[in-house]
Amino acid sequence: MIDPPTDAVVLLSGGLDSATTLAIATAEGYRCHALSFDYGQRHRFELDAAARVARSLGAADHRVVTLDLSAAGGFGRSALTDAIDVPKDRGGDLAGEIPSTYVPARNTIFLAIALGYAEVLGAFDLFLGVNAVDYSGYPDCRGEFIAAFEAMANLATAAAVTGRGRYRIHAPLLTLSKAAIIRRGLDLGVDYGLTHSCYDPDPSGRPCGRCDSCRLRRAGFHAAGTADPLAYP
Amino acid sequence: MIDPPTDAVVLLSGGLDSATTLAIATAEGYRCHALSFDYGQRHRFELDAAARVARSLGAADHRVVTLDLSAAGGFGRSALTDAIDVPKDRGGDLAGEIPSTYVPARNTIFLAIALGYAEVLGAFDLFLGVNAVDYSGYPDCRGEFIAAFEAMANLATAAAVTGRGRYRIHAPLLTLSKAAIIRRGLDLGVDYGLTHSCYDPDPSGRPCGRCDSCRLRRAGFHAAGTADPLAYP
Repeated sequence: MIDPPTDAVVLLSGGLDSATTLAIATAEGYRCHALSFDYGQRHRFELDAAARVARSLGAADHRVVTLDLSAAGGFGRSALTDAIDVPKDRGGDLAGEIPSTYVPARNTIFLAIALGYAEVLGAFDLFLGVNAVDYSGYPDCRGEFIAAFEAMANLATAAAVTGRGRYRIHAPLLTLSKAAIIRRGLDLGVDYGLTHSCYDPDPSGRPCGRCDSCRLRRAGFHAAGTADPLAYP
Repeated sequence: MIDPPTDAVVLLSGGLDSATTLAIATAEGYRCHALSFDYGQRHRFELDAAARVARSLGAADHRVVTLDLSAAGGFGRSALTDAIDVPKDRGGDLAGEIPSTYVPARNTIFLAIALGYAEVLGAFDLFLGVNAVDYSGYPDCRGEFIAAFEAMANLATAAAVTGRGRYRIHAPLLTLSKAAIIRRGLDLGVDYGLTHSCYDPDPSGRPCGRCDSCRLRRAGFHAAGTADPLAYP
């Protein structure tokens, strides 16, 4: 625990991983400023979930930045933002290929804005819930990327260059399996019924159960030996 | 020269440096996609200048991304975005201290979005007009920062990780004096009468002549032995 509390910026999508990350940062004693992005996701359930999770885990505040990149390619054509079919029932371990849900430079852009926010807050700790084990094949979910971003951040900012502090990019889930993430979150009191993971929910927000994200989540709960509080079709 | 033309993303503020950078990228044979940001600058003259410059230098297109970061600290309190006095008539060489015109993580955020845009375009070359000689003391205008961003970019993106290409962040002005930048631009036909550099113009857009940016520009034209086409009070 940190005494007095130190500020941290926590990227919060509203999914299982980022909820667990927020719980970990809070448990480590940080005063957490949750940050979400409205970047034209096809559905709003994620942002609703982020707000619920931030509230339930006692974040100091929760901000949503609207990011309209339509003038600059709009994050490209991704199944997360465009009318492209979300892949379902993909076989294998999901790693090793980059799926259509990949959004160009997404974590780079989110972390860059989080870095500016941290500098304004006087915070030096940024948390994000990337995971390189049960991940979906995104290049910006790997440890090499996180380390490179951290090195860059410490050259980019007045706060770092003038020696006021050193930025640390925390990715506490990086090497955990989905089951380990869930066990850790349950230990910390995360209510996974508040989270949203599905890439392709029905109009009421109910998860499909078959996209990469649902499959990883369901397999994780199964491996953790506990029930997913969300209802699937 | 590159044949056939290769796409590049060029960050274009509408100032002297970015106009010269666009001219250099064009002269090197790139097909240039100019990218500007409307991030709550106190005045619009910069964006008007960017549009004029892109047109006059034959950019393939010019996009303006609106970036409202007010939810995440709004780029902090900077004399460029807030009602803070722009420093005038500062002595010395302007380097060695970070002035109130510093905007937290600005180049990191701009480059991150440019990187996403490049990946969507299939471009691997990004140009920006940062300069570490006659600069205003911004940490994100140094070569170390550019190199670190480039390293990060090549770990962040599907295009780089799958081996489709390697991102290069070009900062062709990095080690040039302001006078050398101006001479280079004049050789390439840049009309500096179209550019806007002032941090604190009058309501008609006329430069103040006394802010850091005006001082560097005026000294640069003086050292280059040529007249600045802009009229000062």
